[in-house]
Amino acid sequence: MSNRPAASDIPRGFSFAATACGLKKSGLDLAFLASEAPAAAAALFTTNCVQAAPVLVSKAHFRQSRHRMRGVIVNSGNANCCTGARGAAATAATALAAAHQLGCAPSQLLVCSTGVIGVPLRVEKILRAVPCLIHARRAGAGAFAQLTRAIMTTDTRPKWAAARFRIGGKQVRLLGCAKGAGMIHPRLATMLAFVVTDGAIAPTLLARALRAAVRHTFNAITVDEDTSTNDTLALLANGASGAPQITAGSAHFQRFCASLEAVCRKLALAIVADGEGAQRVIEIEVRGAPSDRAADQVARTIANSPLVKTAFAGADPNWGRILAAAGRAGVPFDPARVEIRLAGIAVCRRGAAVAFDERAAHRRLLAKYVPVIVDLGCRSARRPASRSHKVSRRGRPGSPDRGRARVWTCDFTGDYVRINASYRS
Amino acid sequence: MSNRPAASDIPRGFSFAATACGLKKSGLDLAFLASEAPAAAAALFTTNCVQAAPVLVSKAHFRQSRHRMRGVIVNSGNANCCTGARGAAATAATALAAAHQLGCAPSQLLVCSTGVIGVPLRVEKILRAVPCLIHARRAGAGAFAQLTRAIMTTDTRPKWAAARFRIGGKQVRLLGCAKGAGMIHPRLATMLAFVVTDGAIAPTLLARALRAAVRHTFNAITVDEDTSTNDTLALLANGASGAPQITAGSAHFQRFCASLEAVCRKLALAIVADGEGAQRVIEIEVRGAPSDRAADQVARTIANSPLVKTAFAGADPNWGRILAAAGRAGVPFDPARVEIRLAGIAVCRRGAAVAFDERAAHRRLLAKYVPVIVDLGCRSARRPASRSHKVSRRGRPGSPDRGRARVWTCDFTGDYVRINASYRS
Repeated sequence: MSNRPAASDIPRGFSFAATACGLKKSGLDLAFLASEAPAAAAALFTTNCVQAAPVLVSKAHFRQSRHRMRGVIVNSGNANCCTGARGAAATAATALAAAHQLGCAPSQLLVCSTGVIGVPLRVEKILRAVPCLIHARRAGAGAFAQLTRAIMTTDTRPKWAAARFRIGGKQVRLLGCAKGAGMIHPRLATMLAFVVTDGAIAPTLLARALRAAVRHTFNAITVDEDTSTNDTLALLANGASGAPQITAGSAHFQRFCASLEAVCRKLALAIVADGEGAQRVIEIEVRGAPSDRAADQVARTIANSPLVKTAFAGADPNWGRILAAAGRAGVPFDPARVEIRLAGIAVCRRGAAVAFDERAAHRRLLAKYVPVIVDLGCRSARRPASRSHKVSRRGRPGSPDRGRARVWTCDFTGDYVRINASYRS
Repeated sequence: MSNRPAASDIPRGFSFAATACGLKKSGLDLAFLASEAPAAAAALFTTNCVQAAPVLVSKAHFRQSRHRMRGVIVNSGNANCCTGARGAAATAATALAAAHQLGCAPSQLLVCSTGVIGVPLRVEKILRAVPCLIHARRAGAGAFAQLTRAIMTTDTRPKWAAARFRIGGKQVRLLGCAKGAGMIHPRLATMLAFVVTDGAIAPTLLARALRAAVRHTFNAITVDEDTSTNDTLALLANGASGAPQITAGSAHFQRFCASLEAVCRKLALAIVADGEGAQRVIEIEVRGAPSDRAADQVARTIANSPLVKTAFAGADPNWGRILAAAGRAGVPFDPARVEIRLAGIAVCRRGAAVAFDERAAHRRLLAKYVPVIVDLGCRSARRPASRSHKVSRRGRPGSPDRGRARVWTCDFTGDYVRINASYRS
């Protein structure tokens, strides 16, 4: 991933800005994203029952503005979570100040915060910086690149993704960015992620596209099984491309959904690849489960097993731990029918060891991306003829590839512990 | 914990032996525990759907011998799990050889294995060692101490516990040992643990006592949320004390249960304290939950959160992570009513930060045993007047301390990763 998108990747009618307001010890920590005209908007928020003030306020803004938003103001360095009435006041003041500068209603802005939980937010630092921040907003790739940096916490690199497709003669662009490296186990959304598009599409349809896109992207990744209190994924569509309205059931909607899912997948995988202390991404694919839901449960249990994740840190083909984790997932299966492949090498067949070259396996597990296939061998699941990696949607009995799921995780290294043993100091 | 029990701690009529048969690179790896007369027996096994050959065989032996057993043969260095038909044959051969030497039916013996999963067991090493092992068995504390060492894998120290009480003029003794440091998240039993007693008690009553004892001991600990494939907890009562039979509903049965729970708690806490890489034991007590079951769910989620466990590794009073973990446990509560105490220091009240001395808190969190209290503040839960640490049994609505649970875990250090990144090499 290069450091910034090309100028031609930037959707029309959006502008970006970032500044250092002093919440972090150093570096950019406050950013702004605006649509010059009101945009259709869809968003998903954390399902954690502990929700930060900006999440609660942004949800209310969404309802009040009937899903027509102007932009997002976001700070890093402090999550403004578990901060009581002062926290809610800080979020409201932030929205008010930014709306005043932009010339819109406060409810047309989303407010997002990320960083440490439980420490009061020094909102005066934000309020002092808002006027200059909002006046400095620009449409270019450089301004967007600054935004991707300003939302980082323990991230080691910015994360962005772009896609485009044509409707008639008009280019429709999608551009997204995300932050997140720890406390990653989204249930309905993830960390902070923002996607903007100049396509024209109604809010209800936009929400449907977003829900479909997250299912096998943001909701299929995990770093440490910890769902954040501040997860927010927002999608803004301002129609500035000039392309015709995207309508339900159309081929254009399908292409929009495919582009959106591609952007979300790229961002989600970038989050796992930059997981705290991570050396590699592990793709856990479970097949032959009683149902897609059961496959997902097994895949998530394997993906969150500290023993599995530490074995991958050592590039150790210790498949016994994978089978042990699958066995505790609460899904019944016959261990004697299980097959496991690590990085393409068959290591377990009919539930027992297969002789394999340990050194060759170790070398393959040192890769940046390691695919793992666990076939539970349930007869009830009809299996597809093709070996395509496509994963079906859940809850579609009779679909040829039911009983499958894919989840992405990262290895668990000493650096994860080092980062998190002293995160606040 | 000293290295061995006193001679007076050893229940009558039991003998022990251990040897090095070569399954481990060095050290004791094969042990035997026998009752000289058939003993009433109760056991709990792993609930993992992947179960090792010795677990499957031992369960069958239990049924065949109608819960009257003579002993246990146990090896470390190999779990004999996921080893197919050869694994089952190896376990059967082990039982047959040991039974032949002892002069009993193979079904009167439990077979246990612990160590790496998925590697064929070199059973010939065990078979060669069995005759000498069984002839060398002795009743003394030294022989028992050798057994506690022979069952260790990544354990850094042996774990044992003893209790006794009187029935009339007769002493009844209980003595237990356990192994386990990783893959610890028992659902119905734990790792390997053996408890012997010279009390006289019927198998059905023994099973009832065992189920009650594990609930708040072995089933309330976790190291890494990974339930093992080989968990076995066995309890043998041979009546050799000469004390009268312990009968249901008697005061003696209550004392027996209390002694058994004390032995199990000591062993369970010893496992957590020796958790792979652990520096300290963290006691997570959840109060004010909608029910005991809900409290347990919240306590386990906190106890398994890698972010919480790494914060404790750094002695960092990062209570925001505790609240974030509670929030994703699937139990509804009002964050604005939550109170959290770390090592006796109030750090969060009504869901928001309380000012506290960070340095003093850090010093207290460096202790070997750190109590954490999370009060969810649910009004529906009636709370006891006393601040006793006693935890009620689940599923007793109306009991004054419902809505509570206690779980023990350990911190998550770089050493856990180091140990598990190259466990098999």
